[in-house]
Parts: sequence; structure tokens; C-alpha cells
Amino acid sequence: MRLALIGLGKMGGNMTRRMRRSGLEVVGYDRNPEVVAGLADEVGMIAASSALDAVDKLTSPRVVWLMLPSGDPTEKQLQELAPRLSRGDIVVDGGNSNYKESQRRGAWLAEQGIGFMDAGTSGGVWGLENGYCLMVGATPEVAQTLEPVLKALAPAADRGWAHVGPVGAGHYSKMIHNGIEYGMMQALAEGLDLLKGKQEFNFDLAQLTELWRHSSVVRSWLLDLTADALKGDQELANVAPYVSDSGEGRWTVIDSVEQGIAAPVLTLALQMRFASQDDRGYNYRLLSLMRNAFGGHDVKSLGK
Amino acid sequence: MRLALIGLGKMGGNMTRRMRRSGLEVVGYDRNPEVVAGLADEVGMIAASSALDAVDKLTSPRVVWLMLPSGDPTEKQLQELAPRLSRGDIVVDGGNSNYKESQRRGAWLAEQGIGFMDAGTSGGVWGLENGYCLMVGATPEVAQTLEPVLKALAPAADRGWAHVGPVGAGHYSKMIHNGIEYGMMQALAEGLDLLKGKQEFNFDLAQLTELWRHSSVVRSWLLDLTADALKGDQELANVAPYVSDSGEGRWTVIDSVEQGIAAPVLTLALQMRFASQDDRGYNYRLLSLMRNAFGGHDVKSLGK
Repeated sequence: MRLALIGLGKMGGNMTRRMRRSGLEVVGYDRNPEVVAGLADEVGMIAASSALDAVDKLTSPRVVWLMLPSGDPTEKQLQELAPRLSRGDIVVDGGNSNYKESQRRGAWLAEQGIGFMDAGTSGGVWGLENGYCLMVGATPEVAQTLEPVLKALAPAADRGWAHVGPVGAGHYSKMIHNGIEYGMMQALAEGLDLLKGKQEFNFDLAQLTELWRHSSVVRSWLLDLTADALKGDQELANVAPYVSDSGEGRWTVIDSVEQGIAAPVLTLALQMRFASQDDRGYNYRLLSLMRNAFGGHDVKSLGK
Repeated sequence: MRLALIGLGKMGGNMTRRMRRSGLEVVGYDRNPEVVAGLADEVGMIAASSALDAVDKLTSPRVVWLMLPSGDPTEKQLQELAPRLSRGDIVVDGGNSNYKESQRRGAWLAEQGIGFMDAGTSGGVWGLENGYCLMVGATPEVAQTLEPVLKALAPAADRGWAHVGPVGAGHYSKMIHNGIEYGMMQALAEGLDLLKGKQEFNFDLAQLTELWRHSSVVRSWLLDLTADALKGDQELANVAPYVSDSGEGRWTVIDSVEQGIAAPVLTLALQMRFASQDDRGYNYRLLSLMRNAFGGHDVKSLGK
């Protein structure tokens, strides 16, 4: 089977390598020509000079898999590609698009007789070795056509991938997966922070996290990675206390509001990331001012 | 090596079985004589008719391991045992005691020349097969004496147990472990609840949780158990929406307050359990009344 992969970054590049290991023919395009030449050389990927060139190197029914940043980059690429595609062709969005966008795109392509699959993909940089966890939304026919690719990307042919529902269901479930991830990470970080703060016990966090990996209730892949990361320096003096967030955490919280279903811990985990990103401290400055106003409490000044 | 195990419930019983598999001699006592007779018969445990009888069946230095509910049961048992112990003997508290109690008990026993070890023990009913994760607080000498027992209980001799600090450090780190567990559980439950609520996709939660077990970022033992539990019925109509909590979640939140270190997600996970336990709904009744008072909004009535 041959397919085109558009976007050969951290995810797309390793996915190409993994597809090639299973003998799939991959026509690859990335806006960075060095990346394209590198993968062509390394794993025998068929180099394309543009997304349209990649499509032209396929035979019907053509399958084009997008691994692009969500939002504009994915939308623009799709707008460029769609006119070149024909009835029976399939577009896969393996990025982290909002599920509502995927539903809209799926409907728009369906009007033209083009299939669409939203493939929520988890596994990060470890996916090359461990395989990717794939949640896909599509019609049964489209999902079946993509089976050989899903089996190649997953940890094994019989696990780690599933057709979870219609178009949109793949990105929706990936969104919730990431929302849960925010909560689990925050829980781990808060607990380790309390341990670190408890100076009378002088805990070795590398020892404790390694210990917990074996038969404890909190054992998890996130704990595995944390234990590994703490093995060197555990003071983290050179790591800024700033945590980025991407769309999926925010969309999970918006979904909680839209559904009217409480998800307080997932919400708070996201809000804590916002708090970490705040270098204005305006909230805290105001609170300090209020305490001074009603109680005469000292305002801690920044000097001068 | 021979030791006494007092309290042969869900944890103590299986720990006795696991110790016996490693050839340790266990003198066992439980207030339920049938449990004692059963384990004597099943695994050759030496039956004791009382805690003091168990002590008398040991030779110096005597090691007595308590697996009792925290609070009064542990305290009373220790008060009964201490006068029968001698210099060089060791008491291990493997239950979920508050670490401050363990520090007090350790100091009190140390005055009498008796050693003390607080052994935070995770693994639940799966510990018999998988081994227990043990966080122990003690002097280096006491921890060394107990090594053969720790190696027998842990998943393997070289992992899943560690001497993490002085007396109190074992129960403190077990407390934080459980606090993290509350947060991780709540994050998983909230995400699955949103998936369940999203009726347009009609998700199969058994399929999704099983899928996530393979190469996803949220893979974890709690997810493994959840996936297994959802394989049968996933409507959960017969499971009451009531979640109990034990001491450790509360103590983690109190520790956050005492240290003045923020742990908002662990706190909220605990508060959500309180909310689940509340059958009065007084908070919500009040809010409904207030909305009516200032905005004339309808108060939903309970009929009649």
C-alpha cells in the first residue's frame, strides 16, 4: 500500500520510519526540503517537492495523511489539496485538530465524495519504538481502507488502535485523553512538590519515583518518565517554572462547559498552567493591595 | 527469620502468604480465630492465641509487624505489646498511620530501646501476586534487620522497596502516594464522564480504556483496572455515586496547608469525594434559594 504523508516533523518523521518498517510505501512532503531528502535517504521514502506533487505520485484511491499543526496550517493544506483529489480518495488528519473542525471538514469532503478520517495519535517521541496509540473516527469503509496503516503505526496489529466512532470521534477522544493527561500530571507534580517541601525527611525524589514504579497504585507511564527525568538533577534550578499548554486541554474544559458536566480537576489542572504562564502577577498584586486596604497588612514591596 | 504478624485481614493475610512463599517463619494473630486457623492450615503459619502469645513465640531480637487499622486499633495494640518487648526488639507499623503518630510512637519506643519502622505499603489485594510497594522509615540498623522481610514482600528483592528516610518518612511518603492516587483517579473519572456524556459519539468506554492501555500517555495501572472493570457493564446503574475516603487523602491536604505549599488538584479531588458523600445537598438548596431571592429564578421543588 502507498500513501502520502504531509508534514514530517517530530511526529510525522517517526511515523514515516515506522510505516517503512512495515513495508508501506510512503510519499513524503515537508516544507523543509532537507527533512524530505533525509528521510528519502534514510528509509527509502519517496520524496515529493510539494503536497500536490505527493498526491500526483499516488494511484487511486489516493490516501493523504496530514501531520500538521492544528488550525491554519491544516486548514490551508486541506484547501490546497481538495481540488486535486477525486471521489473515493481519503484524507486523514493525524494532528491535534479540534473535533468540530474535523466534523466540518469531513462533511465538506463528503460532499465531494472524498473520505475523511480523524486519527487522534498519542505516543509522542516514543512512538517510533513503542508504537502509537490511535483513536480514529471515520465511516467503517474508510477505517477499513486505512487498517494496514493503523496496524503499522500501532504497537501491534491487534492493539493500540481502534475505530471509535464516526468522523470527529477520533479527535474528540484524543482531546479527552489529553485533558486526563493534564490532570494526572498535575496530581503527580503536586505530590512530589509536597515531598520536596518536607525538608525534615530530605527525600530523594529519584528514589521514591523509581520505587513507586513497582507495584504501587500510582504506577504509570508518566511516573516512568518522571522517575527517569529525576535521576540526574532533582533540584531543577535550570527548568523555568512555566508550563505551556496546547489546544486540547482548553478544548476539554470548554467541552465540560458546553456539556454542563463537571470536570473540576481537569479544569484546575489547566488553570494552574495559566497561573504558571502569568508573569504579571496582577491577581496577587491586587490581593496584596486589598489585604492592606481592609486590614492594614503590609504590602510586600519590590524595593526602591 | 521469624517474625510476628498482628492483623490478618485483606492486607495482613496476603502478606503472610507472600512471606511464607519466601520461607519466612510467621507467627500470626488476628482477633478472628478462624482466620488464624485458616492461615495456619493453608501456609503453615504458626498460630498465636493473642498478640502477647505471638511475641512469646519469638526469640530475641523480636520483630512484631502490625497490620491494623490506623488510629485506636494500632495505638491500643502497641500499648499492650510494648511492656512485653525488650531492648533491641522491633515494632513495624505496616498500616496507614498518620506519620506524626509514627514519629511519636518511634520516639516513645526508642526511649525503651525498642526499634520502630513505619512501612507504607501499597498494592492492595493485588499485592499477593504482584508484590507490595514498600516505603520504609527507620534507622539504618532497623531497616537492615528487616531487609529479608521487605525483599519477600516486594515484587522482587531489588525493587519495589526502599528505606526512604528516618522514622515517619515511610508513612509520610505513603500518604503523599495516596494523595496523588486521589488526583489521578479523579482525572480519569472526569475524562471518562465527559466521553460518556457525549452521546452523539456513543463511545464504548471499554474499547477506549483498553485502547489507551497501549502506548498512550495516560497508560497506568489505574487505567488497567478501569478498563478491566468496564468490560462487563459500563452503565454502572448498580454502583452508587458515593466515594469513600480514608485518612490519607485528608492528611495530604492538611499537609499542604501546614507546609503552605499549594496542592489544588489533590485538594479538589478530596473535596469531590466529600461532595459525593453529601446526601443533604444543603449547599445546592441554599444556592437555589439565593438565585430565587435576587433574580426570581424558579426553585426546583421536590414535589408534593
